[in-house]
Amino acid sequence: MRLARFRDSTGNVHRGELHGDLDDEAELTADGETFDPAAVELLAPCEPSKFVCVGRNYADHAAEMDNDVPDRPLLFLKPPNSVAAHGETVTLPSGKERLDHEAELAVVVGERAKGVSADDAMEYVEGFTCLNDLSNRDDQNREQNWVRGKAFDQSAPVGPVVATPDEVPDDAFVRARVNGETRQDGSRDQFVFSVPDLVEEITTYLTLEPGDVVATGTPAGVGPLEDGDVVEIEVEGVGTLENEVRIP
Amino acid sequence: MRLARFRDSTGNVHRGELHGDLDDEAELTADGETFDPAAVELLAPCEPSKFVCVGRNYADHAAEMDNDVPDRPLLFLKPPNSVAAHGETVTLPSGKERLDHEAELAVVVGERAKGVSADDAMEYVEGFTCLNDLSNRDDQNREQNWVRGKAFDQSAPVGPVVATPDEVPDDAFVRARVNGETRQDGSRDQFVFSVPDLVEEITTYLTLEPGDVVATGTPAGVGPLEDGDVVEIEVEGVGTLENEVRIP
Repeated sequence: MRLARFRDSTGNVHRGELHGDLDDEAELTADGETFDPAAVELLAPCEPSKFVCVGRNYADHAAEMDNDVPDRPLLFLKPPNSVAAHGETVTLPSGKERLDHEAELAVVVGERAKGVSADDAMEYVEGFTCLNDLSNRDDQNREQNWVRGKAFDQSAPVGPVVATPDEVPDDAFVRARVNGETRQDGSRDQFVFSVPDLVEEITTYLTLEPGDVVATGTPAGVGPLEDGDVVEIEVEGVGTLENEVRIP
Repeated sequence: MRLARFRDSTGNVHRGELHGDLDDEAELTADGETFDPAAVELLAPCEPSKFVCVGRNYADHAAEMDNDVPDRPLLFLKPPNSVAAHGETVTLPSGKERLDHEAELAVVVGERAKGVSADDAMEYVEGFTCLNDLSNRDDQNREQNWVRGKAFDQSAPVGPVVATPDEVPDDAFVRARVNGETRQDGSRDQFVFSVPDLVEEITTYLTLEPGDVVATGTPAGVGPLEDGDVVEIEVEGVGTLENEVRIP
């Protein structure tokens, strides 16, 4: 099942199910009605109170950044102002030398979770979505905590849908394309820390709320964006998240 | 004016005004009614979508931690699960060697703010409150981003009220007491970066929402907490935030 949030032509917001592919013949069902995806505004498929993000969770990306693989998950936060939806134009910070895409598989929390063991973790997961962990390297490389570097407005486009876990294979591919050209092509089976291990580690310290997002890190191939670039993040079983970026 | 949020004996939540001092004769007015503070449950006085916190904003604290004063604000984030209210018992992470109090003056945002200059910053500020930036040094000292170290559940008690800016002098004292003994005693006029400068820097990158909190750093004297300690944070013009801590 693939779950979407959207605003219909009368302004009402629904959460429902997507049938078919967004770029082919598809329909949305919600609240007993059927909607044409072309006639609604897709919203971010969840409403996170926080993003808990994981760095260096693919060995090949750690290597390209001259970093070691950590002995426990490297965590960082993005606040709610980081959200952007599929199709939304994203305005990146101005005056920076290097602004990067990062393709990620993101976990969407379904049930409030604290002190959850890895064995039980998937009971708290609603499903998976695509996330672009947009990164301002100029500031990330200068600060202890990656706030200017990672937590700026619209720094976390997510979507287009939340796919339930049964839709996403254990070796699901995680890809980024920029203006149609493939830049990242990794797979969930390359993770250093699995989704259940991440949920256990995070919920040792803090409560994950329904709608919260755990971003699982990015494979090798991150690279710079320019004004007007169109970035697609595709996760097998979820679909493709597309955003145009503007750099003022 | 001092603003409080509270739940009355019938379960309704109000935001209103505190008249008098909480530990003396006081009353709360809200929604056309008058309430006895002893008969209600005080809640955190604001509902932050995020805390944007500032490190090393007093030269004497930077020195005690063997750090230089930064050339721009050191920022870090706490998510909504960090909130705790005045009077709430706070459970700290277990199995750690060093868990510290940090007394802070906190700014509560009144109006949505993005790209705000220092000159205009105070127009977006509702007022000030007391904040205890509870810190798990074991993990803070081992991680790039202070998530386990600073973003754990209940890591940011705030309250008891939001005092409007006119109530809080430019040299307001910022104090911590543990079991009645003074441990920190600083003043707002020792800030490395002023409140307007912090608002300008933060809103260059991200939007501050109404209810969001900017924690302005802590003076010298941070120190370890033990199970059962009662911590008071007092900011001149605001009042005293009190929490008992438990370490399982």
